[in-house]
Amino acid sequence: MKPRATALARSQNSRRESAEPVGASAEPRAIAQELEADVGYVLRRAQLAVFADFTSGQRGPVSRPGQFAVLSLIGRHPGLSQAQLCEALDIKRANLVAVLDRFEALGLARREPSADDRRANRLYLTPSGERSLQAAREAQREHEARIAQLLGSAGRRELLALLQKLRELGKE
Amino acid sequence: MKPRATALARSQNSRRESAEPVGASAEPRAIAQELEADVGYVLRRAQLAVFADFTSGQRGPVSRPGQFAVLSLIGRHPGLSQAQLCEALDIKRANLVAVLDRFEALGLARREPSADDRRANRLYLTPSGERSLQAAREAQREHEARIAQLLGSAGRRELLALLQKLRELGKE
Repeated sequence: MKPRATALARSQNSRRESAEPVGASAEPRAIAQELEADVGYVLRRAQLAVFADFTSGQRGPVSRPGQFAVLSLIGRHPGLSQAQLCEALDIKRANLVAVLDRFEALGLARREPSADDRRANRLYLTPSGERSLQAAREAQREHEARIAQLLGSAGRRELLALLQKLRELGKE
Repeated sequence: MKPRATALARSQNSRRESAEPVGASAEPRAIAQELEADVGYVLRRAQLAVFADFTSGQRGPVSRPGQFAVLSLIGRHPGLSQAQLCEALDIKRANLVAVLDRFEALGLARREPSADDRRANRLYLTPSGERSLQAAREAQREHEARIAQLLGSAGRRELLALLQKLRELGKE
Protein backbone atom coordinates (compact mmCIF):
# COMPACT_ATOMS: atom_id res chain seq x y z
CA MET A 1 0.00 0.00 0.00
CA LYS A 2 2.90 2.38 0.70
CA PRO A 3 3.91 3.02 -2.95
CA ARG A 4 0.39 4.06 -3.93
CA ALA A 5 0.14 6.44 -0.99
CA THR A 6 3.46 8.02 -1.95
CA ALA A 7 2.47 8.45 -5.60
CA LEU A 8 -0.77 10.13 -4.50
CA ALA A 9 1.21 12.41 -2.19
CA ARG A 10 3.61 13.33 -4.99
CA SER A 11 0.86 14.22 -7.46
CA GLN A 12 -0.92 16.36 -4.86
CA ASN A 13 2.34 18.00 -3.97
CA SER A 14 3.10 19.20 -7.50
CA ARG A 15 -0.50 20.33 -7.91
CA ARG A 16 -0.08 22.61 -4.92
CA GLU A 17 3.45 23.88 -5.24
CA SER A 18 3.04 27.33 -6.78
CA ALA A 19 1.27 30.49 -5.61
CA GLU A 20 -1.32 31.92 -8.00
CA PRO A 21 -2.50 35.43 -7.17
CA VAL A 22 -6.07 35.94 -8.43
CA GLY A 23 -7.79 39.07 -9.72
CA ALA A 24 -10.90 40.54 -8.09
CA SER A 25 -13.05 38.94 -10.81
CA ALA A 26 -11.84 35.33 -10.34
CA GLU A 27 -14.59 32.67 -10.28
CA PRO A 28 -15.30 31.26 -6.77
CA ARG A 29 -14.98 27.68 -8.03
CA ALA A 30 -11.63 28.43 -9.71
CA ILE A 31 -10.30 29.89 -6.44
CA ALA A 32 -11.21 26.71 -4.51
CA GLN A 33 -10.08 24.46 -7.38
CA GLU A 34 -7.26 22.76 -5.49
CA LEU A 35 -9.68 21.54 -2.79
CA GLU A 36 -11.84 19.70 -5.33
CA ALA A 37 -9.58 16.63 -5.11
CA ASP A 38 -9.91 16.39 -1.30
CA VAL A 39 -12.50 13.85 -0.20
CA GLY A 40 -13.33 15.75 3.01
CA TYR A 41 -14.01 19.02 1.19
CA VAL A 42 -16.14 17.51 -1.58
CA LEU A 43 -18.00 15.35 0.95
CA ARG A 44 -18.89 18.39 3.05
CA ARG A 45 -20.08 20.40 0.03
CA ALA A 46 -22.19 17.45 -1.17
CA GLN A 47 -23.63 16.95 2.32
CA LEU A 48 -24.67 20.60 2.51
CA ALA A 49 -26.34 20.34 -0.94
CA VAL A 50 -28.19 17.18 0.11
CA PHE A 51 -29.34 18.69 3.43
CA ALA A 52 -30.54 21.84 1.61
CA ASP A 53 -32.52 19.72 -0.86
CA PHE A 54 -34.04 17.69 2.01
CA THR A 55 -35.11 20.84 3.84
CA SER A 56 -36.49 22.54 0.74
CA GLY A 57 -38.84 19.57 0.18
CA GLN A 58 -40.28 19.55 3.72
CA ARG A 59 -43.53 21.44 4.34
CA GLY A 60 -44.34 20.61 7.98
CA PRO A 61 -42.81 21.48 11.36
CA VAL A 62 -39.96 18.98 10.87
CA SER A 63 -37.74 20.53 8.26
CA ARG A 64 -34.17 19.52 9.08
CA PRO A 65 -32.53 16.11 8.61
CA GLY A 66 -31.51 15.87 12.28
CA GLN A 67 -35.07 16.54 13.44
CA PHE A 68 -36.37 13.99 10.97
CA ALA A 69 -33.96 11.34 12.26
CA VAL A 70 -35.12 11.88 15.85
CA LEU A 71 -38.85 11.86 14.97
CA SER A 72 -38.35 8.84 12.78
CA LEU A 73 -36.60 6.71 15.41
CA ILE A 74 -39.11 7.59 18.15
CA GLY A 75 -41.92 6.65 15.75
CA ARG A 76 -40.24 3.37 14.92
CA HIS A 77 -39.24 2.47 18.46
CA PRO A 78 -41.86 3.84 20.89
CA GLY A 79 -40.48 3.96 24.43
CA LEU A 80 -36.87 4.56 23.34
CA SER A 81 -34.84 6.35 26.01
CA GLN A 82 -33.00 9.64 25.45
CA ALA A 83 -29.69 7.89 26.12
CA GLN A 84 -30.40 5.23 23.48
CA LEU A 85 -31.35 7.88 20.94
CA CYS A 86 -28.19 9.92 21.61
CA GLU A 87 -26.03 6.86 21.17
CA ALA A 88 -27.82 5.59 18.06
CA LEU A 89 -27.48 8.96 16.31
CA ASP A 90 -24.12 9.84 17.92
CA ILE A 91 -25.38 13.27 18.95
CA LYS A 92 -24.80 15.24 22.13
CA ARG A 93 -27.39 15.14 24.88
CA ALA A 94 -27.81 18.93 24.81
CA ASN A 95 -28.62 18.84 21.08
CA LEU A 96 -31.18 16.09 21.53
CA VAL A 97 -32.78 17.93 24.46
CA ALA A 98 -33.21 21.04 22.28
CA VAL A 99 -34.95 19.00 19.56
CA LEU A 100 -37.19 17.21 22.09
CA ASP A 101 -38.13 20.50 23.80
CA ARG A 102 -39.21 21.82 20.42
CA PHE A 103 -41.18 18.64 19.64
CA GLU A 104 -42.95 18.85 23.02
CA ALA A 105 -43.77 22.54 22.50
CA LEU A 106 -45.24 21.67 19.10
CA GLY A 107 -47.18 18.74 20.59
CA LEU A 108 -45.36 16.15 18.45
CA ALA A 109 -43.71 14.02 21.15
CA ARG A 110 -43.82 13.41 24.90
CA ARG A 111 -41.37 12.18 27.52
CA GLU A 112 -42.51 9.72 30.18
CA PRO A 113 -40.48 8.67 33.23
CA SER A 114 -39.44 5.05 32.82
CA ALA A 115 -41.05 2.49 35.16
CA ASP A 116 -37.75 0.65 35.83
CA ASP A 117 -35.45 3.69 36.02
CA ARG A 118 -37.05 6.92 37.19
CA ARG A 119 -34.11 9.05 36.02
CA ALA A 120 -34.60 7.83 32.44
CA ASN A 121 -37.23 9.27 30.11
CA ARG A 122 -38.99 7.12 27.55
CA LEU A 123 -40.07 8.85 24.35
CA TYR A 124 -43.32 8.57 22.42
CA LEU A 125 -44.96 10.39 19.50
CA THR A 126 -48.38 11.97 19.93
CA PRO A 127 -51.02 11.33 17.23
CA SER A 128 -50.06 14.70 15.76
CA GLY A 129 -46.41 13.62 15.80
CA GLU A 130 -47.37 10.43 13.93
CA ARG A 131 -49.08 12.50 11.25
CA SER A 132 -46.10 14.86 10.96
CA LEU A 133 -43.82 11.86 10.63
CA GLN A 134 -45.91 10.40 7.80
CA ALA A 135 -45.81 13.73 5.93
CA ALA A 136 -42.08 14.15 6.54
CA ARG A 137 -41.41 10.61 5.27
CA GLU A 138 -43.39 11.30 2.13
CA ALA A 139 -41.27 14.40 1.42
CA GLN A 140 -38.12 12.46 2.34
CA ARG A 141 -38.98 9.75 -0.21
CA GLU A 142 -39.33 12.39 -2.90
CA HIS A 143 -35.93 13.77 -1.85
CA GLU A 144 -34.34 10.31 -2.17
CA ALA A 145 -36.03 9.88 -5.55
CA ARG A 146 -34.42 13.14 -6.75
CA ILE A 147 -31.04 11.73 -5.69
CA ALA A 148 -31.74 8.45 -7.52
CA GLN A 149 -32.74 10.43 -10.60
CA LEU A 150 -29.48 12.38 -10.50
CA LEU A 151 -27.11 9.43 -9.84
CA GLY A 152 -29.12 6.55 -11.32
CA SER A 153 -30.18 3.83 -8.88
CA ALA A 154 -26.93 1.88 -9.40
CA GLY A 155 -24.96 5.09 -8.72
CA ARG A 156 -27.01 5.73 -5.59
CA ARG A 157 -26.32 2.20 -4.30
CA GLU A 158 -22.62 2.52 -5.13
CA LEU A 159 -22.47 5.83 -3.26
CA LEU A 160 -24.11 4.31 -0.16
CA ALA A 161 -21.65 1.40 -0.22
CA LEU A 162 -18.61 3.70 -0.52
CA LEU A 163 -19.90 5.98 2.26
CA GLN A 164 -20.52 3.01 4.56
CA LYS A 165 -16.93 1.91 3.97
CA LEU A 166 -15.67 5.42 4.77
CA ARG A 167 -17.31 5.23 8.19
CA GLU A 168 -14.74 2.55 9.09
CA LEU A 169 -11.98 5.21 9.00
CA GLY A 170 -10.07 5.30 12.26
CA LYS A 171 -11.85 2.20 13.62
CA GLU A 172 -9.08 -0.39 13.29
CA MET B 1 -38.01 8.22 -14.33
CA LYS B 2 -41.31 8.24 -12.48
CA PRO B 3 -41.74 4.43 -12.14
CA ARG B 4 -38.33 4.02 -10.54
CA ALA B 5 -39.03 6.77 -8.01
CA THR B 6 -42.34 5.14 -7.12
CA ALA B 7 -40.78 1.70 -6.68
CA LEU B 8 -38.15 3.21 -4.39
CA ALA B 9 -40.87 4.95 -2.39
CA ARG B 10 -42.83 1.70 -2.05
CA SER B 11 -39.86 -0.31 -0.82
CA GLN B 12 -38.98 2.37 1.75
CA ASN B 13 -42.61 2.53 2.78
CA SER B 14 -42.89 -1.15 3.66
CA ARG B 15 -39.51 -1.04 5.40
CA ARG B 16 -40.88 1.63 7.70
CA GLU B 17 -44.45 0.61 8.28
CA SER B 18 -44.36 -1.11 11.66
CA ALA B 19 -43.37 0.07 15.12
CA GLU B 20 -40.68 -1.97 16.88
CA PRO B 21 -40.26 -1.24 20.57
CA VAL B 22 -36.68 -1.93 21.65
CA GLY B 23 -35.29 -3.18 24.95
CA ALA B 24 -32.81 -1.21 27.04
CA SER B 25 -29.98 -3.38 25.72
CA ALA B 26 -30.64 -2.81 21.98
CA GLU B 27 -27.55 -2.07 19.86
CA PRO B 28 -27.25 1.63 18.79
CA ARG B 29 -26.74 0.64 15.15
CA ALA B 30 -29.81 -1.60 15.19
CA ILE B 31 -31.93 1.24 16.57
CA ALA B 32 -30.87 3.55 13.73
CA GLN B 33 -31.07 0.76 11.14
CA GLU B 34 -33.86 2.28 9.07
CA LEU B 35 -31.81 5.45 8.46
CA GLU B 36 -28.95 3.47 6.89
CA ALA B 37 -30.67 3.58 3.48
CA ASP B 38 -30.98 7.39 3.52
CA VAL B 39 -28.25 9.13 1.54
CA GLY B 40 -28.34 12.27 3.72
CA TYR B 41 -27.90 10.31 6.96
CA VAL B 42 -25.09 8.07 5.71
CA LEU B 43 -23.38 11.05 4.05
CA ARG B 44 -23.40 12.99 7.32
CA ARG B 45 -22.04 10.04 9.33
CA ALA B 46 -19.29 9.47 6.73
CA GLN B 47 -18.42 13.18 6.70
CA LEU B 48 -18.04 13.22 10.49
CA ALA B 49 -15.78 10.13 10.33
CA VAL B 50 -13.63 11.74 7.60
CA PHE B 51 -13.36 15.05 9.48
CA ALA B 52 -12.40 13.20 12.69
CA ASP B 53 -9.69 11.29 10.81
CA PHE B 54 -8.38 14.53 9.25
CA THR B 55 -8.19 16.24 12.65
CA SER B 56 -6.57 13.27 14.38
CA GLY B 57 -3.72 13.38 11.86
CA GLN B 58 -2.93 17.09 12.29
CA ARG B 59 -0.20 18.06 14.77
CA GLY B 60 0.07 21.84 14.28
CA PRO B 61 -2.17 24.85 15.07
CA VAL B 62 -4.42 24.11 12.08
CA SER B 63 -6.37 21.04 13.06
CA ARG B 64 -9.83 21.34 11.49
CA PRO B 65 -10.76 20.90 7.82
CA GLY B 66 -12.37 24.37 7.62
CA GLN B 67 -9.23 26.03 8.96
CA PHE B 68 -7.10 24.03 6.56
CA ALA B 69 -9.24 25.14 3.59
CA VAL B 70 -8.83 28.80 4.55
CA LEU B 71 -5.06 28.56 5.14
CA SER B 72 -4.66 26.58 1.94
CA LEU B 73 -6.47 29.06 -0.32
CA ILE B 74 -4.66 32.09 1.15
CA GLY B 75 -1.35 30.29 0.59
CA ARG B 76 -2.29 29.46 -2.97
CA HIS B 77 -3.75 32.87 -3.84
CA PRO B 78 -1.87 35.57 -1.88
CA GLY B 79 -3.88 38.81 -1.83
CA LEU B 80 -7.26 37.07 -1.92
CA SER B 81 -10.02 39.21 -0.38
CA GLN B 82 -12.25 38.07 2.49
CA ALA B 83 -15.29 38.33 0.23
CA GLN B 84 -13.70 36.09 -2.41
CA LEU B 85 -12.74 33.54 0.22
CA CYS B 86 -16.27 33.49 1.70
CA GLU B 87 -17.77 32.96 -1.72
CA ALA B 88 -15.28 30.31 -2.81
CA LEU B 89 -15.86 28.24 0.35
CA ASP B 90 -19.55 29.21 0.71
CA ILE B 91 -19.08 30.13 4.36
CA LYS B 92 -20.54 32.99 6.38
CA ARG B 93 -18.48 36.12 6.88
CA ALA B 94 -18.70 35.79 10.68
CA ASN B 95 -17.23 32.28 10.52
CA LEU B 96 -14.37 33.37 8.30
CA VAL B 97 -13.64 36.37 10.55
CA ALA B 98 -13.36 34.02 13.56
CA VAL B 99 -10.84 31.82 11.71
CA LEU B 100 -8.82 34.83 10.51
CA ASP B 101 -8.76 36.38 13.99
CA ARG B 102 -7.32 33.12 15.29
CA PHE B 103 -4.75 32.94 12.48
CA GLU B 104 -3.67 36.55 13.18
CA ALA B 105 -3.39 35.87 16.92
CA LEU B 106 -1.20 32.84 16.13
CA GLY B 107 0.90 34.87 13.68
CA LEU B 108 -0.06 32.69 10.69
CA ALA B 109 -1.79 35.26 8.45
CA ARG B 110 -2.24 39.01 8.09
CA ARG B 111 -4.91 41.28 6.61
CA GLU B 112 -3.85 44.31 4.54
CA PRO B 113 -6.20 47.03 3.33
CA SER B 114 -6.55 46.78 -0.43
CA ALA B 115 -4.98 49.57 -2.53
CA ASP B 116 -7.99 49.84 -4.86
CA ASP B 117 -10.76 49.38 -2.27
CA ARG B 118 -9.95 50.50 1.25
CA ARG B 119 -12.96 48.68 2.74
CA ALA B 120 -11.64 45.36 1.42
CA ASN B 121 -8.91 43.39 3.16
CA ARG B 122 -6.38 41.36 1.22
CA LEU B 123 -5.05 38.24 2.91
CA TYR B 124 -1.50 36.90 3.12
CA LEU B 125 0.31 34.16 5.02
CA THR B 126 3.30 34.99 7.21
CA PRO B 127 6.44 32.83 6.89
CA SER B 128 5.23 30.93 9.95
CA GLY B 129 1.83 30.47 8.23
CA GLU B 130 3.63 29.06 5.18
CA ARG B 131 5.43 26.54 7.36
CA SER B 132 2.21 25.54 9.14
CA LEU B 133 0.54 25.10 5.76
CA GLN B 134 3.32 22.78 4.56
CA ALA B 135 3.01 20.66 7.70
CA ALA B 136 -0.79 20.60 7.46
CA ARG B 137 -0.61 19.56 3.79
CA GLU B 138 1.72 16.73 4.65
CA ALA B 139 -0.72 15.42 7.28
CA GLN B 140 -3.62 15.97 4.87
CA ARG B 141 -1.88 13.83 2.22
CA GLU B 142 -1.50 11.02 4.74
CA HIS B 143 -5.21 11.38 5.53
CA GLU B 144 -6.13 11.09 1.82
CA ALA B 145 -3.82 8.09 1.53
CA ARG B 146 -5.72 6.38 4.37
CA ILE B 147 -8.95 6.98 2.45
CA ALA B 148 -7.40 5.58 -0.75
CA GLN B 149 -6.22 2.55 1.22
CA LEU B 150 -9.74 1.95 2.54
CA LEU B 151 -11.64 2.44 -0.74
CA GLY B 152 -8.94 1.56 -3.30
CA SER B 153 -7.91 4.37 -5.66
CA ALA B 154 -10.65 3.49 -8.16
CA GLY B 155 -13.21 3.56 -5.35
CA ARG B 156 -11.89 6.92 -4.17
CA ARG B 157 -12.19 8.38 -7.69
CA GLU B 158 -15.69 6.92 -8.07
CA LEU B 159 -16.72 8.46 -4.74
CA LEU B 160 -15.43 11.90 -5.77
CA ALA B 161 -17.33 11.68 -9.08
CA LEU B 162 -20.60 10.70 -7.36
CA LEU B 163 -20.23 13.45 -4.75
CA GLN B 164 -19.54 16.07 -7.41
CA LYS B 165 -22.74 14.99 -9.16
CA LEU B 166 -24.68 15.27 -5.90
CA ARG B 167 -23.67 18.92 -5.62
CA GLU B 168 -25.88 19.60 -8.64
CA LEU B 169 -29.00 18.83 -6.52
CA GLY B 170 -31.41 21.72 -6.56
CA LYS B 171 -29.43 23.61 -9.21
CA GLU B 172 -31.65 23.05 -12.24
